[in-house]
Amino acid sequence: MDYIISDKMKNLKPSAIREIFKYAADPAVISFAGGNPAPESLPVDDLRRFMSKTLEENPVQALLYSQSEGHPPLRAEVRRFIKDAYDIGGDKDELMIVSGAQQCMDLVTRCLCNEGDTVICEDPSFIGSLNCFRSYNVSLKGVPIEDDGINLALLEKAITESRNVRFMYLIPNFQNPTGITMSIQKRKAVLALSKKYSVPIVEDNPYGDLRFIGEDIPSIKSMDEDGLVIYAGSFSKILSTGIRCGYLLAPAQIFPSLVVAKQCADVHTGMLQQLLCLAFLQNGDLLGHARMNKFVYADKCGLMLKLMDESFPKSVTYTRPKGGLFIWATMPDAFDGAEFALRLVRDYKVCVVPGSTFSVNEGERSSSFRLNFSMPNEAQVKTGIEACAKLLREMGVS
Amino acid sequence: MDYIISDKMKNLKPSAIREIFKYAADPAVISFAGGNPAPESLPVDDLRRFMSKTLEENPVQALLYSQSEGHPPLRAEVRRFIKDAYDIGGDKDELMIVSGAQQCMDLVTRCLCNEGDTVICEDPSFIGSLNCFRSYNVSLKGVPIEDDGINLALLEKAITESRNVRFMYLIPNFQNPTGITMSIQKRKAVLALSKKYSVPIVEDNPYGDLRFIGEDIPSIKSMDEDGLVIYAGSFSKILSTGIRCGYLLAPAQIFPSLVVAKQCADVHTGMLQQLLCLAFLQNGDLLGHARMNKFVYADKCGLMLKLMDESFPKSVTYTRPKGGLFIWATMPDAFDGAEFALRLVRDYKVCVVPGSTFSVNEGERSSSFRLNFSMPNEAQVKTGIEACAKLLREMGVS
Repeated sequence: MDYIISDKMKNLKPSAIREIFKYAADPAVISFAGGNPAPESLPVDDLRRFMSKTLEENPVQALLYSQSEGHPPLRAEVRRFIKDAYDIGGDKDELMIVSGAQQCMDLVTRCLCNEGDTVICEDPSFIGSLNCFRSYNVSLKGVPIEDDGINLALLEKAITESRNVRFMYLIPNFQNPTGITMSIQKRKAVLALSKKYSVPIVEDNPYGDLRFIGEDIPSIKSMDEDGLVIYAGSFSKILSTGIRCGYLLAPAQIFPSLVVAKQCADVHTGMLQQLLCLAFLQNGDLLGHARMNKFVYADKCGLMLKLMDESFPKSVTYTRPKGGLFIWATMPDAFDGAEFALRLVRDYKVCVVPGSTFSVNEGERSSSFRLNFSMPNEAQVKTGIEACAKLLREMGVS
Repeated sequence: MDYIISDKMKNLKPSAIREIFKYAADPAVISFAGGNPAPESLPVDDLRRFMSKTLEENPVQALLYSQSEGHPPLRAEVRRFIKDAYDIGGDKDELMIVSGAQQCMDLVTRCLCNEGDTVICEDPSFIGSLNCFRSYNVSLKGVPIEDDGINLALLEKAITESRNVRFMYLIPNFQNPTGITMSIQKRKAVLALSKKYSVPIVEDNPYGDLRFIGEDIPSIKSMDEDGLVIYAGSFSKILSTGIRCGYLLAPAQIFPSLVVAKQCADVHTGMLQQLLCLAFLQNGDLLGHARMNKFVYADKCGLMLKLMDESFPKSVTYTRPKGGLFIWATMPDAFDGAEFALRLVRDYKVCVVPGSTFSVNEGERSSSFRLNFSMPNEAQVKTGIEACAKLLREMGVS
């Protein structure tokens, strides 16, 4: 039997990160490739305690079907939490519990895009979301990202010149892969463009709670009075990435379609993770925990940047993130990030992700690579950055 | 902001079952509408114990990202289990852990279907799968189901006369909604048609372990030597529906695409449920547990059928399932299952699912309704069937 793969899937490559993840499973490899929070930041004891308590008190509830929108007490608790903590989620919005924030992209694209429609993205952007959009055969239009966020003039040009723009996808806080944060001015300007051209914004905010320098900047959603913003939130980076539990906050008008899409996708999010999140929100201290994590992340990011400052050739530039998980390093144009990443894992057993992975235009060469600072320990950061510096010089970067 | 819903989603209605589920949340309502296993059949104590043990031993592993294909030890354990228990899963197949068997339909449709392609289904069939196919804008072609499974002549006609048939979707064991089991002869014939016309089979087998009368019939997958069958399996009906954990067994050729689709959909299935299933497979007795459940299900189904035999008007026919969760009742043509279901919940606070819900052609009238016998207790079955009988006579069914 020869299977014929659908047009939308036949050219899609596996995410390079997921593939590199396999190398990284080799204990001899130092990985700067992942996107996990710092293992030492996870509230393991709390989670263990809450899970036991939940299964003690509500075993059958945990094991039977629930509603596609999410377990009602968790939905209520999340709404309360995000209203208090982030000032989002009013009367005009509905909230759904999803199987990780990635699923928001899946449901939103299914509900808003026909094949051939355009989705506008920061370029570079998160490969998981880009591939999700591609899997619906939409046309992706990339807009370059600058030190304070997306280029506004090129964004407006993209909106006006692209065919059937259905939404713009933005990661305003500590963007993946660049670590860049969008300024408050640009957030307001982007919202104004959204309103002017009736192009919704999908705001992906997985890293918002991971700020370790400076003050929080309000989310675009918190400034949205016109139902322009669909917001994807997650407790992944605070509680756990592995449990796969996030939420989607969307204007009431499109919510029924999103619920049907959720039914089609996986019926509802697993009850174990929903009840665990509920117990944590009711009995734990999510923001307090996030605040304590700041020191862990500040130290880890600071160490990596310090070592890069000391050892990297001067022509290599890199971002200095104020939060999140990633540093984005760029070699001079003549050098190839994919070659660098390949030689680094092959010759030095250190993993980074080549910049081309995140290009909106597939196959586009990139002289950048992404470094994760949250996962490795101090010794690994030292050895790994030393290897990077050595390879950069070997390749002739000066 | 006025949102425009995509062509594929704009006409999709929420699953009537999911909607009725909301009525059923009212404790005063007796529900014959759900699709949960018998609550008393769930291995609550085992699951509680295994979950605690898992979080004791592997807390960090449970909380970090894993591979899209599934947690490797669980994949290995499931392969071993299905080889031993069902004789499926050889060298030519790959196995993926998915977020419930529903997700198999999502991933397979994404990978195999372009918009407008045809998927052939038993008619009636499971609304969750039908809606999933519809959410990819495929054209559904229904083939009537008979007492021993799908009508073969009409199946062949559908294959030869429909445009771009990409797969046929079959639930051979205790089909949802009819409770019908496909005979071994028909399984062989269907496989022969699949081979003759190079049309793959998606075999959905959520209820296979819930047989309480007679001998198991080999799955179509177990007879497949040509990579024709994609098999969707689940522990939902034995361990838990609420945890959302199933598996997909597919020919190696299409597996890479399915993995990419999984990355796009939700990155990977949650680790809590994966580790729980792993612990159960390693330390529990899945088949032993399933065998013990047989008595529970046989009693429950037997009681409902006995009461229907005693009280239903003679013109109402119904299936006598040998396993699974559902009985399918059919009134004479002149009567409407939707009217019956509506009046039943409104006037008698008893929920059944109208047959039209499962029609492959949306909006098609049906004189049938689906009854679930696994969830209600004895008193509820008595009260509920009495209400059904009373309403049938009220409506003039004789």
